[in-house]
Parts: sequence; C-alpha cells; structure tokens
Amino acid sequence: MKDRYYLAKAITLVESTRKDHKVEAQQLLSLIMDAQHERAKEIGDSAPTFRIGLSGPPGVGKSTFIERFGMYILSQGHRVAVLAIDPSSSKTGGSILGDKTRMPELSYHDDAYIRPSASHGTLARNTNEAMILCEAAEYDICLIETIGVGQSETIVAEMVDMFVLMVPPAGGDEIQGLKKGIVEISDLIIVNKADGEFANAAREAAAEYTSALKYLHPSTSVWNPQVLRVSAKANSGMDNAWKLMQEYYHVMKRSGELSKKRGEQRRLWMWRQISSELLDRLNSDKEICELVDQLEQKVFNGEMTSGTAADHVVDIFTRKYSDAK
Amino acid sequence: MKDRYYLAKAITLVESTRKDHKVEAQQLLSLIMDAQHERAKEIGDSAPTFRIGLSGPPGVGKSTFIERFGMYILSQGHRVAVLAIDPSSSKTGGSILGDKTRMPELSYHDDAYIRPSASHGTLARNTNEAMILCEAAEYDICLIETIGVGQSETIVAEMVDMFVLMVPPAGGDEIQGLKKGIVEISDLIIVNKADGEFANAAREAAAEYTSALKYLHPSTSVWNPQVLRVSAKANSGMDNAWKLMQEYYHVMKRSGELSKKRGEQRRLWMWRQISSELLDRLNSDKEICELVDQLEQKVFNGEMTSGTAADHVVDIFTRKYSDAK
Repeated sequence: MKDRYYLAKAITLVESTRKDHKVEAQQLLSLIMDAQHERAKEIGDSAPTFRIGLSGPPGVGKSTFIERFGMYILSQGHRVAVLAIDPSSSKTGGSILGDKTRMPELSYHDDAYIRPSASHGTLARNTNEAMILCEAAEYDICLIETIGVGQSETIVAEMVDMFVLMVPPAGGDEIQGLKKGIVEISDLIIVNKADGEFANAAREAAAEYTSALKYLHPSTSVWNPQVLRVSAKANSGMDNAWKLMQEYYHVMKRSGELSKKRGEQRRLWMWRQISSELLDRLNSDKEICELVDQLEQKVFNGEMTSGTAADHVVDIFTRKYSDAK
Repeated sequence: MKDRYYLAKAITLVESTRKDHKVEAQQLLSLIMDAQHERAKEIGDSAPTFRIGLSGPPGVGKSTFIERFGMYILSQGHRVAVLAIDPSSSKTGGSILGDKTRMPELSYHDDAYIRPSASHGTLARNTNEAMILCEAAEYDICLIETIGVGQSETIVAEMVDMFVLMVPPAGGDEIQGLKKGIVEISDLIIVNKADGEFANAAREAAAEYTSALKYLHPSTSVWNPQVLRVSAKANSGMDNAWKLMQEYYHVMKRSGELSKKRGEQRRLWMWRQISSELLDRLNSDKEICELVDQLEQKVFNGEMTSGTAADHVVDIFTRKYSDAK
C-alpha cells in the first residue's frame, strides 16, 4: 500500500475513537504486523526502517530543517514520512507541527508523506501505530517531530531509534522552556542557524554542548552523542547530519542494540497503554471523576496522604466494576 | 510521639502488607495528617520541615557523609531522620542503605532516627508515609538516601524538597552506572573525598560539573544548582553544605515554590499509586499473568502491537472483575 490516500485513511482509522473503527484498526495492524514479521525473518533484519525523533523549542527552525533534510534524504533514494506529536496545539493554539504549508517542496514530493498533528494533540498510541502504517507503506525513514516542552519529547524518544535535539545558536541558560533531561537523552544535538551573524554564537553553543555532554552519561555504550552545526535556511550541513544519523543507525544495528531497543520500547508501551487504558476507564466514570477531583484537592492541600486517596479511588473503581454486571 | 520505639512501630505498621494493618495504618496517617494540617494553618507554614534526598553511586561515601552531616545539623539544634530507598538490596545483595553500623555516632544520638531499608527493598509509598510519621515525631529534617542507579533517584527526587547528588572526585565518564538525567535533576552536587591525594581531581570534577550545569535547565527559576566540594572523612565542608541547603530551603519557601512543589508531588504520587495499585491487582491474578507473559513476548518480538496487547489485557481484567461478583 504505497498509496498516500490509503495511508491517510488507515491513519485516520487508527486515530478514530469509534468502537467499530478500533476493531477494524486492530485487524489491519494485526495483518501488517504479521506481514512485517514474516518479512523480517525472510530478509534477516528486524529493523529495516529508521525512526528518527526531532525535538526543539518553538522557533528553532524545525520545519525548515525537515524540508531541507527531507529533500536531501529523498535525493539519496529514501522515502520519508513525517509525523508529529504536539502537546501544545490544543492548549496554546501555537503553530501546528507537521503543517504542510511549512514544508511546501517536501509535501508535494511523491516519496514523502507528511501528517500534520491533529488539532486535539496527537496521542502517543496513535503515533506509534501511524508509524507502523507508514513503514508498511514503504516509507523507510520516519521522522517524528515534537516541541521540546512538557512530556512530549520523552514520549518521542521512547518510540524512535535515534533522538535528535535541535537548539538555537545561544547559551543553554538563554533557551526558554527546554525540558530538564532532554539534553541527556539526545543522541545528536543540532545547532541550527549556524550562518551569517549567528556563526560565532553557534560555534560557541556547539562547544558548550560538547563539554556538557562529556559530563552526561550516554544511553548506549556503542554511541557517544554528537554535536553538529547546520543552517537549514542556507541548506548547509544536511549531508553531515545524514552521515551522522546513518553512522548511529549502523552502529546500533551491528551491535544488536537497535533490535533490543525496539523490543524494549514495545514492551514499555504495552505497559504504559495498560495503565493509561485503566485510567481512561476510571476517568470515564462521572461519579468517580467527581470523587477524584475532591480527593486530589485534599491531597494537594496536604489533608490526606496520596496513598489513602489512591486506595479510595481504586476501591470504588473495582467495586463499581463488580457491581456493573 | 517523640519516642523512637513508637515511631519504629508506626513505620512497621505502614510497611505491613496485612490487610488489618493497612486499615490501622491509614487511620493513624489520617489522624496525623489532620493534626499537621491544623498546625500548618496555626503557624501559617505548610512546610515547617525540610526533606532532603541524597543519591550517589555505591562507594562514593554517602554513609560517612550522613554520619558527619547529621551530627553537624544536630549541633545546630535540629532533629534528623534518615530513611532509605534501596532498589538493589534484594537483587545484588549490596550494602544496606541506612545501616546503623555505618553511622555509629549518629544512630546513638537521641535526636536522630535511622531506619535501615527493609531487605526486600523499600517501596516508595512506604517511604512517603514513613516520612510523614518521622515529621509527626518531630524530626524536622528528613534525609532520604538512595543509590544513583535504576529508578530510585527519580523516585526520591519526586518526594523531597531538595535533591542532592554526591559524586566521587572523578570525571563524569569515569563514573559507572549513574543514571541518565540525574545530574539535571540535582539542586546541589557534592563532590566528596576532596582532600589529600584527591584534592586536585575533586577541584577538576567540580569545575566540570559547574560548566555542565550551566548548559542544563534548572527545575525552578528561583534556584541555580550549585556544586560543592567536601570531605566527609576529614569532616570538612559540612557547614557549607548545610548553608547551601538552608539557602535553597528559604528561597524556595519565600517564593512559594516549596508548598507548590509539595502539593504537586502529592498529586503525582496519588496518580502513580492509583496506577500501581491497578496494575498490582491485575498482576495478582494468575491467569492474567500468564496471558501477559505471552503477550509481552509477542510484543517484544514485534508480532503484535503494544496497543493490541494492552487492549487484550485490560479487556480480560475488567471482564474478570465484572464476573467476580
């Protein structure tokens, strides 16, 4: 199913909250998983695709980078899909990630597929499944874009092979809103806008990130996180960025770390989804919701321990379920 | 209840897994919370105590530090309780955190209370509740000790006012097993063993941590994480450590950040405990456990999506509950 129309329809299906759509989506995914699994055995490669996460604060130039970088990897014979997780779109009304108008050239290319984030913010589960669909549609490179605030970048880091952080040519303390820990989980830090009047600032920023990284602990023993300067606007550095990413991909693959990482990510997501579905069911009960609100306030004020409140909620939830029948 | 005997009994009660003990424990905690809440209103201070987390790799000298530092703050007129979260004790059979024999002077002092970690590893919920009990027993400083591996230091960071990381006088890349992100969540980094032959190495390490911190993002706008050299063995630097900690405490308190932080921590723990209790109930069902094992393997191998597996598990769990009646 190389057709973009069918891919878009399939993604809409997995994003749907309608019960019959959900059943259909799971059937479709199951067929795909079987086929992928067979194919993996056939070609002796459980990860023939490359999943790249790209995060960075608003205004750093992610769209321009994706446009240029995407065109570059297309020129290398790849097919690229761009997905987005955007926790801000519903709340702040900020710019829409993955917006096609921000990547005009890439979005019209036959071998590229861009999926803007849904207006309500795209759920992690949907993105995980959309990625599987894109890979089935023979996009061998998946780029997942997010902004570096809130929880979204941790979520993205936990569903991709490589996590790339894009930063402006400025000191770390000048960057607003970057989440704690994001530097430490990055496999590659790209300093953008490294040209013209910012060339020197970018050099300094890159040097400082390099020394900061020296003191942080890499997530895998086979790869030391790198720092790279590019200018998306001037279209320079795309080749180096891709070279470093490929290096990472091959090192991770040869060492067996990549398939281990993917397996562990899948297991993590399974448990995360079990938790979140249980909490969803809990929160979809109006009466329990009201109780939770009251208890939450008490807990926040220090009038009740977290444990006591949790016991209450779980007791009532499980009692309700037993009564439901 | 200033009596250590009753405090120890109360903590044993909240740690118990027996159902009647649990009920008793919740009643006791509820009485205490009410009293604390009343007192907070009376004195106009919702956080009259100070909760300090201390983490660091094995062998860094945490026990010696706690012994000296504890004696120092006792000399300043405080009462100190030392608790431990130790994820390793059950698995690796490593040294027991909070072991009294490792803090001989402190453990015999009337104004100190040391609770060694239970042999099965101490659960976060128990530690949260033990801390409340210690505060009710008029220990105004709570030190929560953990080793800097696994998830324990994140857990500790999320239950204390200030998170302190202790490191050896060595380069970041030479420290084995320190968890990613731990440097970034630290409010204070203490380089220990900064004397004798290690004096220079400690100075270098401190300088490198200082520049690494410059590039990371502080968790609160009112405090910039600090780096300090001490020598627990030579009993030097305890006054400076305490001075910095008090500075942090007062800045956080005056700005209102401390009570906000505690409220948010309590809320976080409530949700975390709801999740973990739901998962506990799920995992205590033998049949579901077997299913989960099978699905987990399939998910790990890439034969099934995480979402599909999660749906299965949750469906069967909730169906079982409806049937249970």
